[in-house]
Amino acid sequence: RINGDRLWDSLMDMAKIGPGVAGGNNRQTLTDEDAEGRKLFQKWCEDAGMTMTVDTMGNMFMRREGTDPQAKPVYMGSHLDTQPTGGKYDGVLGVLGGLEVIRTMNDLGIKTKHPIVVANWTNEEGTRFAPAMLASGVFAGIHTQDWAYAKEDAEGKSFGDELKRIGWVGDEEVGARKDKIHAMFELHIEQGPILEAENKDIGVVTHGQGLWWLQVTVTGRDSHTGSTPMPMRRNAGLGMARMTELVHQIAMSHQPAAVGAIGHCDVYPNSRNVIPGKVVFTVDFRSPNQDTLDGMKAEFEEKAPKIAEELGLSVDIEEAGHFDPVTFDETCVTAVRNAAERLGYSHQNIISGAGHDACWINKVAPTAMIMCPCVDGLSHNEAEEISKDWASAGTDVLFHAVVETAEI
Amino acid sequence: RINGDRLWDSLMDMAKIGPGVAGGNNRQTLTDEDAEGRKLFQKWCEDAGMTMTVDTMGNMFMRREGTDPQAKPVYMGSHLDTQPTGGKYDGVLGVLGGLEVIRTMNDLGIKTKHPIVVANWTNEEGTRFAPAMLASGVFAGIHTQDWAYAKEDAEGKSFGDELKRIGWVGDEEVGARKDKIHAMFELHIEQGPILEAENKDIGVVTHGQGLWWLQVTVTGRDSHTGSTPMPMRRNAGLGMARMTELVHQIAMSHQPAAVGAIGHCDVYPNSRNVIPGKVVFTVDFRSPNQDTLDGMKAEFEEKAPKIAEELGLSVDIEEAGHFDPVTFDETCVTAVRNAAERLGYSHQNIISGAGHDACWINKVAPTAMIMCPCVDGLSHNEAEEISKDWASAGTDVLFHAVVETAEI
Ligand SMILES: NC(=O)NCCC(=O)O
Ligand SMILES: NC(=O)NCCC(=O)O
Repeated sequence: RINGDRLWDSLMDMAKIGPGVAGGNNRQTLTDEDAEGRKLFQKWCEDAGMTMTVDTMGNMFMRREGTDPQAKPVYMGSHLDTQPTGGKYDGVLGVLGGLEVIRTMNDLGIKTKHPIVVANWTNEEGTRFAPAMLASGVFAGIHTQDWAYAKEDAEGKSFGDELKRIGWVGDEEVGARKDKIHAMFELHIEQGPILEAENKDIGVVTHGQGLWWLQVTVTGRDSHTGSTPMPMRRNAGLGMARMTELVHQIAMSHQPAAVGAIGHCDVYPNSRNVIPGKVVFTVDFRSPNQDTLDGMKAEFEEKAPKIAEELGLSVDIEEAGHFDPVTFDETCVTAVRNAAERLGYSHQNIISGAGHDACWINKVAPTAMIMCPCVDGLSHNEAEEISKDWASAGTDVLFHAVVETAEI
Repeated sequence: RINGDRLWDSLMDMAKIGPGVAGGNNRQTLTDEDAEGRKLFQKWCEDAGMTMTVDTMGNMFMRREGTDPQAKPVYMGSHLDTQPTGGKYDGVLGVLGGLEVIRTMNDLGIKTKHPIVVANWTNEEGTRFAPAMLASGVFAGIHTQDWAYAKEDAEGKSFGDELKRIGWVGDEEVGARKDKIHAMFELHIEQGPILEAENKDIGVVTHGQGLWWLQVTVTGRDSHTGSTPMPMRRNAGLGMARMTELVHQIAMSHQPAAVGAIGHCDVYPNSRNVIPGKVVFTVDFRSPNQDTLDGMKAEFEEKAPKIAEELGLSVDIEEAGHFDPVTFDETCVTAVRNAAERLGYSHQNIISGAGHDACWINKVAPTAMIMCPCVDGLSHNEAEEISKDWASAGTDVLFHAVVETAEI
């Protein structure tokens, strides 16, 4: 078993970097706080005898040697970046859980045939730079590095410039190692309510939902809220309101296997007495079912322009993020289930509602995920919470699955 | 007749201060640009022989002496501040039109019994600091100065601090002169489509619409857009969408004598994969009819909490701005109509769709307004446009109404 107290202490130490305003974290990707978090993780790993390689997307690979120099490494990992008002565990548990597995192996003098690598993937959250899971996506060959470098945040700063600014552009060509991964395991909090409700310690993640992000720009005409008669208005804000309802209705018509919402919107000029002339917002549709996922996107693309037309608006819809539903590797999934079984933890199969770096790595190597419950299913919220026992159980399962896969 | 070319040149010179991004202006109240605009106006007035007094709200009073030292002054004026993406004429025409009247009187050697004052009222727009017409409202005794000083912009800077910072806190107690106003005339662009459509040079403003601004805070719970099942969501953004539709439907049910929209909204945390946990927005309802105006507010206050309840949200509604419908002074209105008639300009009675400083001054002194058309009825937009002829005609009418009222 791993050392749950040591794991917890490391989680709490990391959470001191980029504290939020309500007990959580604001350690967004490629900020000074992200750089500080990376440094701390690097130090801990080096103290545990690991060596670091960083690639040109800033992905960190911390390696513990195996007994067979030819064997491909087994990977663990997730991400250290957070939402602007994020929790202390989303991503972080998967990275520091990996570190705890290595520390435990050191304590117990466990040697494995395969080397083991703990990874920290850059910009998983996708808030500062869309899309999410950006650097694991480039690693897996889904996006090009040039495309990723050109992505801009709300202030117009580019991913490439910011990665350079914080000093984390590595030497290794991104993806160079993608054919040399024996397997990868990502431990993550569920971010949903199922495991807690079912009173299960462990979620054996068999699938992941697919996603479409659509960036929508609705253009009307700014004009005076007092002196513009109702029939002359071209109110982009009203257009957004009706499209928000449309997104909700589309998702509701595919229950329970779909979700849809709008999380981000900017209104221009955003003045109390100006009818909005432009709004930009991002639609988030998800489903574990490919047809449902693509059908929701198609329905929105068909109906949003009609809403716009009725209101004298124009609308532009751009794809801003996408991944298909994922089926994880059966061998890896079985290793997770067996580990939970062996350790005596209650478990059940689960579909990941969120996207994860594991979803992209699964395209290039056998991959699986382990989930632990979180309180009230709450995530992407500073109040995100888990128990030390849940964190320990998930990391125990990670430990066993990895050691079994890396072969003693 | 006034000098239309000189008036136009001054309008264009003022527009160089705080230029916008699309041909208009961004000279918001209490910014460095506002200070620069005030300085230029002061210089022009002093060159025309006027003397300045500034009150503790930063209202500027530029005075031309009359022949009777006991006579109360006749006022002209409006505001030099603009929307963040505003036009070159909204407010500015009324101030620089007043200056042009004085310059013309100087040219023609006209002396009046009553002194004449051209006023620039602080923070008419209400975008940076709500409510609109803030300083004329304090002047007229509607708000207290302490209350106004405490108003904060989106960055948390207070009105009082910013007024001090730009160096325009004057010596005169605000409102000290409010009982010594013989009459006040405000020239303004219509900001609506009626005069252009009716092919009229002059709007004789008999009434003004009343307004309610309601600042609404909808609170839900931020959570993950992917892993939070639809029935567990408390989506404040969806609540705002439904309240936006409600505002629209309420206004539509009172046509043609009502308008309603939402111009300003802030979404928290505004991240693509976070269901909004909080939104703050401002509802703008207007009508020339008191019952309609108050009825719209009451209907929103009754129905918005029901929308919130259905979605598991809470809602807080705060009054953020208000004025009742206005009836302007009959003698002043007649002076405007007579001036238009005498000058041979086509004219019609009109109700102001927007709020104006004249609406507050009307509470303490006989007041009227003159309107000139604007292209497409467009205002609060950088593309706001008027013709030189329209500006000249409006200023001619201001000249005649003021000289008649101030008595030669
Ligand atoms: N796990 C997680 O929150 N990832 C961010 C990408 C997503 O929105 O699913
Ligand atoms: N005239 C004008 O645009 N005033 C601003 C206050 C309002 O919104 O009516």
